[in-house]
Amino acid sequence: MRAVDLIARKRDGHPLSRDEIRWFVAGAATGAVPDYQTSALLMAVVLRGMTPEETFWLTEAMLHSGDRLDLSDLPGLKISKHSTGGVGDKVSIALAPLAAACGVMVPKLSGRGLGHTGGTIDKLESIPGYRADLSVAEFKEVLRAVGTSIISQTATLAPADKKLYALRDVTATVESLPLISSSIMSKKLAEGTDAIVLDVKCGDGAFMKDSALARALASSMVDAGARMGVRTEALITSMDAPLGRAVGNAVEIEECVRLLQGAGPPDLMSLVSRLAVRMLVTSGACRDDAEGEARVRTAIASGEALDRLRRMIARHGGDPRVVDDPSRLPCAAHRAAIVADRPGYVTRVGAGLVGRAAATLGAGRTIVGEPIDHAAGILVAARPGDRVSAGDVVLEMLSNDPAALELARPLARAAVLIADEPPALPSLVLDSVR
Amino acid sequence: MRAVDLIARKRDGHPLSRDEIRWFVAGAATGAVPDYQTSALLMAVVLRGMTPEETFWLTEAMLHSGDRLDLSDLPGLKISKHSTGGVGDKVSIALAPLAAACGVMVPKLSGRGLGHTGGTIDKLESIPGYRADLSVAEFKEVLRAVGTSIISQTATLAPADKKLYALRDVTATVESLPLISSSIMSKKLAEGTDAIVLDVKCGDGAFMKDSALARALASSMVDAGARMGVRTEALITSMDAPLGRAVGNAVEIEECVRLLQGAGPPDLMSLVSRLAVRMLVTSGACRDDAEGEARVRTAIASGEALDRLRRMIARHGGDPRVVDDPSRLPCAAHRAAIVADRPGYVTRVGAGLVGRAAATLGAGRTIVGEPIDHAAGILVAARPGDRVSAGDVVLEMLSNDPAALELARPLARAAVLIADEPPALPSLVLDSVR
Repeated sequence: MRAVDLIARKRDGHPLSRDEIRWFVAGAATGAVPDYQTSALLMAVVLRGMTPEETFWLTEAMLHSGDRLDLSDLPGLKISKHSTGGVGDKVSIALAPLAAACGVMVPKLSGRGLGHTGGTIDKLESIPGYRADLSVAEFKEVLRAVGTSIISQTATLAPADKKLYALRDVTATVESLPLISSSIMSKKLAEGTDAIVLDVKCGDGAFMKDSALARALASSMVDAGARMGVRTEALITSMDAPLGRAVGNAVEIEECVRLLQGAGPPDLMSLVSRLAVRMLVTSGACRDDAEGEARVRTAIASGEALDRLRRMIARHGGDPRVVDDPSRLPCAAHRAAIVADRPGYVTRVGAGLVGRAAATLGAGRTIVGEPIDHAAGILVAARPGDRVSAGDVVLEMLSNDPAALELARPLARAAVLIADEPPALPSLVLDSVR
Repeated sequence: MRAVDLIARKRDGHPLSRDEIRWFVAGAATGAVPDYQTSALLMAVVLRGMTPEETFWLTEAMLHSGDRLDLSDLPGLKISKHSTGGVGDKVSIALAPLAAACGVMVPKLSGRGLGHTGGTIDKLESIPGYRADLSVAEFKEVLRAVGTSIISQTATLAPADKKLYALRDVTATVESLPLISSSIMSKKLAEGTDAIVLDVKCGDGAFMKDSALARALASSMVDAGARMGVRTEALITSMDAPLGRAVGNAVEIEECVRLLQGAGPPDLMSLVSRLAVRMLVTSGACRDDAEGEARVRTAIASGEALDRLRRMIARHGGDPRVVDDPSRLPCAAHRAAIVADRPGYVTRVGAGLVGRAAATLGAGRTIVGEPIDHAAGILVAARPGDRVSAGDVVLEMLSNDPAALELARPLARAAVLIADEPPALPSLVLDSVR
């Protein structure tokens, strides 16, 4: 096989075979196929697309480029959860211990933030002492003891995806449904779980702005899961406004704690609960949504869910006292408010702009490996639909860098729109694909 | 400027600016832009195209990546000629001395063959002793003395094109009108001549199979020449059958000699003469075609054209006696004939198959740098329109490798079609663009 012939076929819009895709992916991962050929093929895929079969073969090839976790010695049903990323999306940090408290096991490998969306690992690392780089043996130990563990991506799972992703990032080949789908699913399938629940974000603050594209991505990923024999379900959820009231790192941990105490913002509570129920039903742990909902309510009311979070933090070397005393989390030295310039109804808190403002404040990074300010972020005081008077605080910006507050102010200010009439509020869950 | 942003814009079908193209080309040539980004952009260009302005800016950027020959100290009008390549296309080797004999100067930088089409330099190197790698000073000395000199591409002219071409070859990004046009024209414009005459081959044995594409390429190249203030003209000529009767290296030199002796095959004579006339008229050396034709006839009849070839060979260290005694050229040890399997009219001698058969015999190469057999090739005994009897020789294969004769036989046999009715013969010159 010659790489140039495969590139030419894809360039001309023809599908590649399973063997060809496997050969190319293996070559790209080992370096036998040089990067300049890989990036040419990636661009041809972006512009010519892939059939559902090709997308699955690509997923499969990346999955087979590395290890697949063997969790068979751990008891019970194991479930993966993944979000395509949004602003204020701290769902996993509350959901994983909640689902564990409901009786399923949630092994989770997460990433760091890049651009305007945050990363679960960055958020957890705002907890003093939290170690995300556990070995597989340590990971399984935490899973056995607590029922959930959230670690950073390891080099041995889907290494081909790691290689391709690094190349896509610098060659403008990120935006491609088959490439996104296979990248996510190769990693999720490598987690070796019985079921996968996906949260495909759609809207201004998400990677997918368009609901048709979000549905297509969801279908592609559910298809790949089904072909591998892993029950997979996707919710398509709105990401037009930040999720909950906290955007950043430490502030999102604090919000997760409040949620597991039963006092979280309604939108976040509703989404976490819906995802938990689907994890319980999809994996077969619960018969139906009603049974799942009852179990979720009990896990929160009993304090069991919060306790799982506390124990997970402790097992990862983190300070578990943050759960009872959030002042132990990093706290920003400087704050500044964005106030309403007129009375009326908040019609929009643009997730994209809030995300960029939070990154400007230090909560995110634009280059891989850049350090972040765990205390920085934005608190959303007024959500879409809220009535405000002129001068009311609508956003509060937090940072350790006073100059960053001024840089972020125009972005934050532009994120909030106020009008005379209350807006029509879209539902948070737009659709689901099974 | 960031390469990834430029790639993204081209991926999305937007034009790049002159500065952006210049920045990218300079970066690609120096390595400041890594190959994997360059190849991603090349694939985006293949699939998204370029506007005429972008194509010119790309040409200009590649031209400016290196030196432009300064021929201003040489007397008279200088003219470049270029063919996009065909099977049996030895035109330059006869045309350059012919035009020089008519009073214009023809500095020519040529390439080696790859795939099924031959290279002018390979053909010249079949002459014992011929050196194609003259320095610029030696090149100009030959030009001053003889009026023409044919050397191989130098590293200092359009080095960015050299870099991009090497990458295109291995990333399936050769087939793109703006990339082909800019590659050719950056090198031609670097020759620093007063006018450029292009022979755009179209048909089965050419790179461009389709006449609309050939016309578009011709227009693009003429446009780039005009924008640079260099009078440029293109003929679009048929490449469905091999040009002349010889396909190979030494055999093509011998055919050029015969042509300049006034005894060449009519199709080749007609094309060489037409191109010579257009070189004389386009450059302003002759008033009109009639004057040009008269001068061409005289240059051949007087022996002046042949003498220029003899002197050019001698100045390049080659054995000039090959002009009077072709047996001094390499001669193949083995021969085999393809005969007509039925009586009738030859309707087709497929240039593509003949080219592939000749390469199989050793006359061409599939990998850059591979050695070739200068004696190998094919003699076309029966041309389209010829009447043959069963058993008549239609093609004669030459090689120093007896096994190659058997490998090439099915290709050569498939190239020739014979039918009851004589074919409609297309004209050799299909169109011209000025």
